[in-house]
Amino acid sequence: MESPTRWLDAEQQRIWRTYLLGAARINEVLDADLRTHGLDLAEYEILVTLSEADDRRLRMAELAEAVHQSRSRLTHTVTRMERRGLVERQSCPDDRRGVWAHLTEAGMGLLRRSAPSHVESVRRVFVEAVGPEDFRAVGRAFERVLAAGRESAD
Amino acid sequence: MESPTRWLDAEQQRIWRTYLLGAARINEVLDADLRTHGLDLAEYEILVTLSEADDRRLRMAELAEAVHQSRSRLTHTVTRMERRGLVERQSCPDDRRGVWAHLTEAGMGLLRRSAPSHVESVRRVFVEAVGPEDFRAVGRAFERVLAAGRESAD
Repeated sequence: MESPTRWLDAEQQRIWRTYLLGAARINEVLDADLRTHGLDLAEYEILVTLSEADDRRLRMAELAEAVHQSRSRLTHTVTRMERRGLVERQSCPDDRRGVWAHLTEAGMGLLRRSAPSHVESVRRVFVEAVGPEDFRAVGRAFERVLAAGRESAD
Repeated sequence: MESPTRWLDAEQQRIWRTYLLGAARINEVLDADLRTHGLDLAEYEILVTLSEADDRRLRMAELAEAVHQSRSRLTHTVTRMERRGLVERQSCPDDRRGVWAHLTEAGMGLLRRSAPSHVESVRRVFVEAVGPEDFRAVGRAFERVLAAGRESAD
């Protein structure tokens, strides 16, 4: 016999929907801001992640993991960014474990130009709107979401 | 003179990125679950919202507001759902304020079939992974994100 569905209670449902709407709001604001630089949030995350890597490059598989995108979606995004000269793909003859994505000078320049207003938007729409105490609680909450994901992958 | 950028400190940056990755993880799990019913999260939210409305219908503008989607994105999604017979658009002769989206019996049936496993996924990946105290803090945090958005829209 199937076990009966454990529906969310009224408070859980309210919190879950508030989260969905708030997350959509954050995305809207950040996307609108980044659009003035011709970027979306996924592309911005790729620029940041590559800028912090050794030699500003990562294997595509590592990059996908770091920005939590599927390989197919990442390939699509990187192709678009490569056409604009922001990243380039390199295959190393002495490394058969695949293709690297490398941040170009143009990509680094765009990151430097777009970062100040992006960070101001993150502060305004999220960090300062929420306040320090609940912001730390959000950090703990999403750390546990990720930890539960790692456990279930083991 | 431009004011200097107020960069996030190390802890704020860590929390911000943990949130981005955790939110991506939640979306991945819920999308994978809903895909078994041929739905994505945005479509599911539309089914739920219409199912709770009077006569199971809303004006497109109200629906866009309720699910926090842009009008253009919503139009695209509703067109796709209409082709599958899940919703239908109606224009009322005595109401010139636009087009209504109406949940069909087929749409209601799909919602009933997909809800139990969706709710189990929400519980597993979020509600129970996080725990009650920080889950309530997440609710407060995203309520403030939405309130800040309403204020800035005034």
